[in-house]
Amino acid sequence: MTPEQMLDVAVIEARKGLAEGGIPIGAALFSSDGQLLGAGHNRRVQDDDPSVHAETDAFRAAGRQRGYRSTIMVTTLSPCWYCSGLVRQFNIGALVIGEARTFHGGHDWLAEHGVTVTVLDDPQCVTMMEEFIAAKPELWAEDIGE
Amino acid sequence: MTPEQMLDVAVIEARKGLAEGGIPIGAALFSSDGQLLGAGHNRRVQDDDPSVHAETDAFRAAGRQRGYRSTIMVTTLSPCWYCSGLVRQFNIGALVIGEARTFHGGHDWLAEHGVTVTVLDDPQCVTMMEEFIAAKPELWAEDIGE
Repeated sequence: MTPEQMLDVAVIEARKGLAEGGIPIGAALFSSDGQLLGAGHNRRVQDDDPSVHAETDAFRAAGRQRGYRSTIMVTTLSPCWYCSGLVRQFNIGALVIGEARTFHGGHDWLAEHGVTVTVLDDPQCVTMMEEFIAAKPELWAEDIGE
Repeated sequence: MTPEQMLDVAVIEARKGLAEGGIPIGAALFSSDGQLLGAGHNRRVQDDDPSVHAETDAFRAAGRQRGYRSTIMVTTLSPCWYCSGLVRQFNIGALVIGEARTFHGGHDWLAEHGVTVTVLDDPQCVTMMEEFIAAKPELWAEDIGE
C-alpha cells in the first residue's frame, strides 16, 4: 500500500466522524506489509469522551500488540501532544500525516526521536479541517485544550 | 487536600487494578479546590485495551471539561510519554507523582513546559511497582512498549 492509499482509510474514518456530528479526524494503524490493524476516529462528541482522539481510537481498535516498531500510524491531521506521546511511548515506527497546515502537533518531535514521518499535505484533508474549524471553533478549541 | 491525600485516591485505584489482575497504576484528576473530578486505573488486562492507562482513565472519568489549567493530575507512577502528552496537550496545570524510581517518564519535560510537578517518592508506591514488575515483567514491558 502507498501512503496515499493508507491515508484514504483514515479519511473515510474522518468522514464517518463528521457524519456523526463529531470532529473530522480519522486514523488507522497498519502493519509494515499494509495489513490494517485498526482504524478509528475522534469521538469526543459522539461518546462524550475527551480521551478518544483518532489515533488513540485506532490504537485501541488494533488491540494488544506485542511491539509496534514495524507499524505505521496514519492520521488525517498532525497528531496533538497526547497522540504524539502515544506514538513515542509505544515505539510506533512510522507516521503518515494527511496535513499539518490547520494544526501543527508533535510530529517534528517524533521525527527527532527516530519516527519516520511523512506529511502528504493532502488538499481534501486541509479543506475538511478548515471547514470544520470555521463551523465549530469552540468545539475545536476544546478538543486541543485551548 | 494535601498532595499526599490526593495520592491516597490514586493508590486506592492502583490497588483496585491489582486486585483485578491488572497493572497497579492509579490516577485521579482534581480541581484546584480539591474536588475529585475523576479517578481510574490501568485496564490493559481487564478490558484487553492498551489505550487505558491510569491517567487516560482518570481523564475520561472526569468527562468533558472546558479548560484544565487549574486541575491537578495525580498518579502513582511517573507518567509515560502517552500520558505526559495528555497532560501537556490539555494544559493540565499540576502533576503529583507517587514515585519515579521504577519508571522515569516525561515529568521533567512537563516541568520544562510549565507544569508544576511534585514527586512524593512514596515508599508504598515504589514497593507496589517493584513487586508487580518482579512478578510480571513481560506484562510491564508490554504496557510501556518495550
